[in-house]
Amino acid sequence: MAANGDGFSNASMENLTGHVEKRPISTIVFIVAMQKEAQPLIERLRLVKDVNSPFPKEVAWILFKGMYKDLNINIVCPGKDSALGVDSVCTVPASLVTYASIQALQPDLIINAGTAGGFKAKGASICDVYIVSSSAFHDRRIPVPVLDLYGVGMRKAFPTPNLIKELNLKVGRLSTGDSMDMSPHDKESITANDATVKDMEGAAVAYVADIFKVPTILIKGVTDIVDGNRPTSEEFLENLAAVTAQLDESITKVIDFISGKCLSDL
Amino acid sequence: MAANGDGFSNASMENLTGHVEKRPISTIVFIVAMQKEAQPLIERLRLVKDVNSPFPKEVAWILFKGMYKDLNINIVCPGKDSALGVDSVCTVPASLVTYASIQALQPDLIINAGTAGGFKAKGASICDVYIVSSSAFHDRRIPVPVLDLYGVGMRKAFPTPNLIKELNLKVGRLSTGDSMDMSPHDKESITANDATVKDMEGAAVAYVADIFKVPTILIKGVTDIVDGNRPTSEEFLENLAAVTAQLDESITKVIDFISGKCLSDL
Repeated sequence: MAANGDGFSNASMENLTGHVEKRPISTIVFIVAMQKEAQPLIERLRLVKDVNSPFPKEVAWILFKGMYKDLNINIVCPGKDSALGVDSVCTVPASLVTYASIQALQPDLIINAGTAGGFKAKGASICDVYIVSSSAFHDRRIPVPVLDLYGVGMRKAFPTPNLIKELNLKVGRLSTGDSMDMSPHDKESITANDATVKDMEGAAVAYVADIFKVPTILIKGVTDIVDGNRPTSEEFLENLAAVTAQLDESITKVIDFISGKCLSDL
Repeated sequence: MAANGDGFSNASMENLTGHVEKRPISTIVFIVAMQKEAQPLIERLRLVKDVNSPFPKEVAWILFKGMYKDLNINIVCPGKDSALGVDSVCTVPASLVTYASIQALQPDLIINAGTAGGFKAKGASICDVYIVSSSAFHDRRIPVPVLDLYGVGMRKAFPTPNLIKELNLKVGRLSTGDSMDMSPHDKESITANDATVKDMEGAAVAYVADIFKVPTILIKGVTDIVDGNRPTSEEFLENLAAVTAQLDESITKVIDFISGKCLSDL
């Protein structure tokens, strides 16, 4: 659905929200690529690591869970690569944990939260927090009719006009790719995607959630300016802690806003 | 395990094969990105589409199954994109079906079979069928220490010296990326990966199978010459049928060889 750039139709949106829009949102799954990005939120919401996680014993995926107000909050991280000990970033682990979380936790809402690069030409600054209006891939170039659109995989995020207005959040399009840098080919696709922020997971989370028609919000904090003068990896590491704190603050406001509301109130 | 380019250690290989090496291989799962690539094999082995597939009802994933000699053969395809009607190629769907197939079918062996681009500079010609010695990604550039190695994600395939000798198969390294074309950045990484063949799924299948320690073989038929003069998409479409037939023939020989053998006999 909605991979052709037109986003959700009204009919499909009604269909999408039909099963939960009449009752308050109950279960939220956060998909967060790096545990470090999630840590302030885990502590603030007093979530605990699920030692009997519903995931297979072979995976490093971590589930933090707990109640916050009336909400059943779950944060799922892909965890560390077993051979290298680094966070399992990129689209493949993100899609796997999204799939497994939907199967195991049956969320009313998925929130993909994390860091991103921002484009100053599109108005982004370090520490900005964006609500994503649509996501697409910039590194799946398939020059065959229709497969080209499939590769781009543009999807509108779940619309949250009231949330955006109430919290005064910045709104922008997200482009996703598996590289931290930006090649000239990536740049061309990111421009075509009209992206304000660039990450390494979002469009994959949106793809999987779309298959199961689970409404999805993407919230991205800007750690580096892609069209600036400094190397992305350097800026990313330097600003990670500050942006994560900012992201934590925004997400808490988002959760407070969601509490007690139906999907159609967002 | 083995994402650092050194491949499986001897100790881990024993561990990997320990649980099945003493008995004949029983269950094989083929992961095939496009049903068209699998069709000749489906017909030759008289596999039937599983109408009660073990996968969630929301997914388009297709399971073809049947017995061939003493082997329980399963072919899993990600199926068509529900919005666009094209095959769900690329690493994300491949990783999802690999994960779900391991969970549902508990295979002794995974075989990722399909088409690939070949490099004539490394000896590849149209219609060649390669057994992959190792797989890696060429479009996950993460210039942060250790994350760079994670991004490349090089893994040795399950070693099959007897199979390769008996069937006189060509052997080469595989590089995987989500684009059909090859950007200069991709080319640099493919060269660093020392790849003879290039596809859009293999390294993702190997990544997921490695998490669950399921031995994995990758078999790739060359539809186009990446370092030739013609556009990949044109050559790909032109040669798809002939290469698929060639691939079918090779895979049948592989299955005949596997039948009655233990993993350690391969």
